[in-house]
Amino acid sequence: MQLKQVILIGAGNVAWHLGRRLHEQGIRIAQVYSRQLDHAEALGRQLACPATDQTGQILPLDHCLYLLIVSDDAIIEMATQLAFLEGPQRVFAHTSGAVPGSVLVKHFSRSGVFYPLQTLSKDRSIDLANVPICLHADDPEIYQALYELAVRLSDHVFQIDDQARKVLHVAAVFVNNFSNYLFAVGKQILDDNGLSFDLLRPLIGETAAKITDRDPEAMQTGPAIRNDQQTIIAHLRFLQQYPEYQNLYRMITHAIREMHHQKELP
Amino acid sequence: MQLKQVILIGAGNVAWHLGRRLHEQGIRIAQVYSRQLDHAEALGRQLACPATDQTGQILPLDHCLYLLIVSDDAIIEMATQLAFLEGPQRVFAHTSGAVPGSVLVKHFSRSGVFYPLQTLSKDRSIDLANVPICLHADDPEIYQALYELAVRLSDHVFQIDDQARKVLHVAAVFVNNFSNYLFAVGKQILDDNGLSFDLLRPLIGETAAKITDRDPEAMQTGPAIRNDQQTIIAHLRFLQQYPEYQNLYRMITHAIREMHHQKELP
Repeated sequence: MQLKQVILIGAGNVAWHLGRRLHEQGIRIAQVYSRQLDHAEALGRQLACPATDQTGQILPLDHCLYLLIVSDDAIIEMATQLAFLEGPQRVFAHTSGAVPGSVLVKHFSRSGVFYPLQTLSKDRSIDLANVPICLHADDPEIYQALYELAVRLSDHVFQIDDQARKVLHVAAVFVNNFSNYLFAVGKQILDDNGLSFDLLRPLIGETAAKITDRDPEAMQTGPAIRNDQQTIIAHLRFLQQYPEYQNLYRMITHAIREMHHQKELP
Repeated sequence: MQLKQVILIGAGNVAWHLGRRLHEQGIRIAQVYSRQLDHAEALGRQLACPATDQTGQILPLDHCLYLLIVSDDAIIEMATQLAFLEGPQRVFAHTSGAVPGSVLVKHFSRSGVFYPLQTLSKDRSIDLANVPICLHADDPEIYQALYELAVRLSDHVFQIDDQARKVLHVAAVFVNNFSNYLFAVGKQILDDNGLSFDLLRPLIGETAAKITDRDPEAMQTGPAIRNDQQTIIAHLRFLQQYPEYQNLYRMITHAIREMHHQKELP
């Protein structure tokens, strides 16, 4: 089984990045579907392919990968709507870190998971060659077909089963989604006080750069690990105007100290 | 008043980075003090200067900046111990983001703050030229002396008063210390499940790279902002084995949704 073309079911951030990379690598995108026609058409124009907002008009094509790139909660419903496309030469895969591959088995004899482990925003380009792609398929032949496609996109392709993918996804939420939220908290605190967020950008860059080849426990700095009690108290007092941030500050400061088993000043 | 030499009071991470940069830029380091003699000596060897662990043996030198690079809680006590060094041609500054400049006024007629806004780990080199240095001194002549020194170290020198520096420091704790803790949480979750942290390193790099020229609110991705309820529930269930992380997950997921004023699926 060889996959010669892809139909993108979805036109959000992840679909844009995967679609453009597939297109660049010479893999034919046969169609884009989105329930929002303007989104489907915008991506279709990028990929020189037709677009539709009607599931009934999604093309029945052999040697085609139907890539479900929709929000986690929409995958099962979308699979049901696509059931009419089932055929022995068609593969159905979703791109979710959180949803088991098994949800596609009910409707499709050939299915898998094609999960790019990265934070993808539509208007920011990224080199997908460096993005880990985590694949899963029960059927070795389907796995092989997905693998052959994935290695054309990325230098880092891994076989990751449902359980491991779920673990990865939870961890990814902590390191990406939640860190990004903390960046936004920092920005809001500066904005509210008339200070430029540019002052913090080098710090954010270095925070991550440290982790390219080091482990985060060893890179921990700041008042919590130094046990600067007076500073922690002063910060908490300043944060009284932000009860939610104050609560978070208290919780994470405590957790850093727990993680490093610190009881008192060295 | 021109500062011709520096005595480092402290031999921790920040002292290593500032000391090496000062030395590289041709500024004389006259001495290193640390209450741990081996730490003082190790840094002294790097900087080709004498070391001591006795405050009484710190050299009385004119045109000298005494840079107090000790933990926040130790600054006042250290200033008291250094009071005997007070003189009209000597400047005393601390490097803390959190401690007001005024704590040095009691003992020294010429004092200020010299705060590098970065996360500095001893065994990781960094280009200090890109690190914002935040200066404060009530006396314009002292400010000018500190400024002339700082611009030899960094291309980004700012006049930041005590209140603004405190705000910056709180924000820095969120974007750096707390993000780094989240990276450690991600690593622990992977470690516990036999997965390599290398899988997450590209994601961490991109999480920060996005923020070099964009604002974090616009870069938020993940189940919270997409309102993937089933995924959030599955993650919380997985995190039952980590009650502290589960609590943090719940809190930040809620906060992301509050920040983006989301009530239901679009």
